Amino acid sequence: MPHASDAIQKPMQFVQEAAERWRADLLDLLRIASISAQPAHAADVRRAAEWVAECCRKIGLSAEIVDTAGHPAVLAEGPHRPGRPTVLFYGHHDVQPSGDLKLWHTGPFEPIERDGRVIARGAADDKGQMLCALAAAEAWIATCGDLPINLKLLIEGEEEIGSPNLAPLVERLADRLACDHVLIHDTSQYGEGVPAITTGTRGLVYIEVLLTGPSKDLHSGVYGGQIANPINELAALIATLHTADGRVNLPGFYDRVAPLSPDEARALAALPWSRDAFLAETGSLAEAGEEGFSTLERQWARPTLDVNGIYGGYMGAGSSTIIASRAGAKISMRLVPQQRAADIEHLAIETIRQRCPRTVRCEILTHASCDPYVSDPTSPAILAAKKAVSAGFGREPVMIRSGGSLPILPMFKRVLGADSIMLGYCLPTCNAHSPNEFLHVRDFEAGMRTTTAYFGLLAGAA
Amino acid sequence: MPHASDAIQKPMQFVQEAAERWRADLLDLLRIASISAQPAHAADVRRAAEWVAECCRKIGLSAEIVDTAGHPAVLAEGPHRPGRPTVLFYGHHDVQPSGDLKLWHTGPFEPIERDGRVIARGAADDKGQMLCALAAAEAWIATCGDLPINLKLLIEGEEEIGSPNLAPLVERLADRLACDHVLIHDTSQYGEGVPAITTGTRGLVYIEVLLTGPSKDLHSGVYGGQIANPINELAALIATLHTADGRVNLPGFYDRVAPLSPDEARALAALPWSRDAFLAETGSLAEAGEEGFSTLERQWARPTLDVNGIYGGYMGAGSSTIIASRAGAKISMRLVPQQRAADIEHLAIETIRQRCPRTVRCEILTHASCDPYVSDPTSPAILAAKKAVSAGFGREPVMIRSGGSLPILPMFKRVLGADSIMLGYCLPTCNAHSPNEFLHVRDFEAGMRTTTAYFGLLAGAA
Repeated sequence: MPHASDAIQKPMQFVQEAAERWRADLLDLLRIASISAQPAHAADVRRAAEWVAECCRKIGLSAEIVDTAGHPAVLAEGPHRPGRPTVLFYGHHDVQPSGDLKLWHTGPFEPIERDGRVIARGAADDKGQMLCALAAAEAWIATCGDLPINLKLLIEGEEEIGSPNLAPLVERLADRLACDHVLIHDTSQYGEGVPAITTGTRGLVYIEVLLTGPSKDLHSGVYGGQIANPINELAALIATLHTADGRVNLPGFYDRVAPLSPDEARALAALPWSRDAFLAETGSLAEAGEEGFSTLERQWARPTLDVNGIYGGYMGAGSSTIIASRAGAKISMRLVPQQRAADIEHLAIETIRQRCPRTVRCEILTHASCDPYVSDPTSPAILAAKKAVSAGFGREPVMIRSGGSLPILPMFKRVLGADSIMLGYCLPTCNAHSPNEFLHVRDFEAGMRTTTAYFGLLAGAA
Repeated sequence: MPHASDAIQKPMQFVQEAAERWRADLLDLLRIASISAQPAHAADVRRAAEWVAECCRKIGLSAEIVDTAGHPAVLAEGPHRPGRPTVLFYGHHDVQPSGDLKLWHTGPFEPIERDGRVIARGAADDKGQMLCALAAAEAWIATCGDLPINLKLLIEGEEEIGSPNLAPLVERLADRLACDHVLIHDTSQYGEGVPAITTGTRGLVYIEVLLTGPSKDLHSGVYGGQIANPINELAALIATLHTADGRVNLPGFYDRVAPLSPDEARALAALPWSRDAFLAETGSLAEAGEEGFSTLERQWARPTLDVNGIYGGYMGAGSSTIIASRAGAKISMRLVPQQRAADIEHLAIETIRQRCPRTVRCEILTHASCDPYVSDPTSPAILAAKKAVSAGFGREPVMIRSGGSLPILPMFKRVLGADSIMLGYCLPTCNAHSPNEFLHVRDFEAGMRTTTAYFGLLAGAA
């Protein structure tokens, strides 16, 4: 274990000794297929919430299930004592869908330990990382009889579908959730052996475009070439969304994009980055994207548009000669500071409607809409987090941004007036949202130590 | 019953009296889900073959199951007597997939009779129409103790997947299948109360394009904008396949397209056609297609390109933020005389490969490839067919083409040297390949009478 000051040494030692038990608990939680996107798994999401609440109670926190219009959240807390810093820990107990089961080497909800990894859907995102906060709380309570901070935990069940009911919940419980800052583990290290603190995330607008041509599937021989084919029209529409140089082709899309500051640009350029490793990691033939920017700039500081799913007509084996009645595409845009999600959502929907030919019906749904976020990299909480990482991982963290989105960051800022500290322990290559998601056992343990140290360091116990 | 000459009156009367029994038989056959495109239904396709063979035996024909590399066919025949015309009747016992079950008002394989219609997958295409030939054969054997012609029947099980094993089978059995011409019911009337003989069909090239970007689905936040997205690339590729004026954008695609003869163009323009009825029938907002041609010209005399299916990424409910590893599109082209399927298949594959960006892997499969077909509208067999329709339906048929494809027509011409007579009884609006496929009971009966008359008229019994 790395060197740590006296006050945090005991709980850090406790959490290390409890690591194996927490690993077993993680495996247990990973067996629950809490896929929030799929209505068939609603009961599993609730089971995950109950599991988390029960776990909180076991370690000495009070905890309750909080129902929402969608999936339930868990609200837990330790004793409140005036004068201590108050931290709201945020995590989520829901997970992404499995994706193509054929690509998983083991069942996504049959977690195993292999080669120093815990492998299952949700191992990293966010069940494994979220448990680090519970383990840290237990360590302090078990060794000191109390926490050094006022700790509140909000573990929601709808993060993977864009947290549609979290803002109303936080608004409703704003008094109980009041805090000095929010702590989140749902990000990652920069790479193998390079722990990181994340200071910015991209925003997200996620829409679904549905085109309807004929009122039913038709014989493509009898009707082909005489009516608009919604799949052809959808493809043509999607093709208009980028220019040849890889820019998003929506008028005004880039108007509010803030360039990186010279400091940030220098720090970004200084980070270790390997093209070969990137291609090996993605299995892609080449880098691609907006011309004139490096891959890291594209990931953290440039907005994007991607089709996340497309469907229509005959999708089974072999062939079927139909003109489909309907075709749809799930389209998401990642936004950067200072773009505004509401503006971009409006822009995308209006532009697509205008470009849609009059020969098909166009319906557009919004699945998610959230602003980008940046925090102050020099705040006292971030300085404590830096020291905690040094204590937990034995090395200084780098400061990075994330290409992903955490819709809750701008919301916490707005409702609670609180900034968020993003301190993630998994690797960026952990296959979150992909088959064979994993969390290294060593990072799980370093994470538990880091969060334990963080609680103490934040309270001035350094 | 319409007026008919003496020699054909008795069998026509018999077949009319047997109509209810044949309808019950049809319902029985429609309960077999003989979907040739779906491997899970292979046993059902075989059951359909066995049903047809048994039915042939019951009416006095010899019949056997003929195995192929795929689904089995049925070969049946009556006694052969020199000097009589020899007809090879061709039909198929396989059916299209159900499509979206939610759009069916009743189960696709739970046939019912309602409002004068038999409703089920395959009611028209081709089970109901095919049974008309069996009913006609029975009528002659039952009333005259013999058929007036030499009749052979070849009922295959792979028509809906492009008949991949029919040509080898016909080549292998060429001697047994030798005939003066082929008779096919797998076409339709022109419209309500307008029976038709079809003299041409379009060709078909059906390919599937598969693009692979990353080696697995990736998080669209972490990787979006940095690697090629195979769905976006596929859409862009599809968008290049048409020009703004609705023409197929493959270089040289139209080089061999034969214009309609002045006679054909006049006959086509004289056919009753209603724009409102067309839009009501398709449920489409507008006509669309190649500029400069009428809808009927587009259907019968112009080649087309349509995407029949598209898939990739997250296709479930709600949202999932992934960059898909793979995306695919099923793309078919309908060809007209004198285009050659082999040339167009090569042209499409090479052009798509060239246009595919180097950032994704491109794989192209061919599912079907068949030439267009036209027959001589003044042959003696067609003249007999015209008279038979007058006898069976009580009105003269119009001469039309079909926008669909019958891969077997050019193949019969090549292997057996035989032209094909296409005499179909269902409506063009019968929902073949769509939900709620049906065959009018009155057309089923008129069809049975027509085929019965045709056998006699062909033998000179007029």
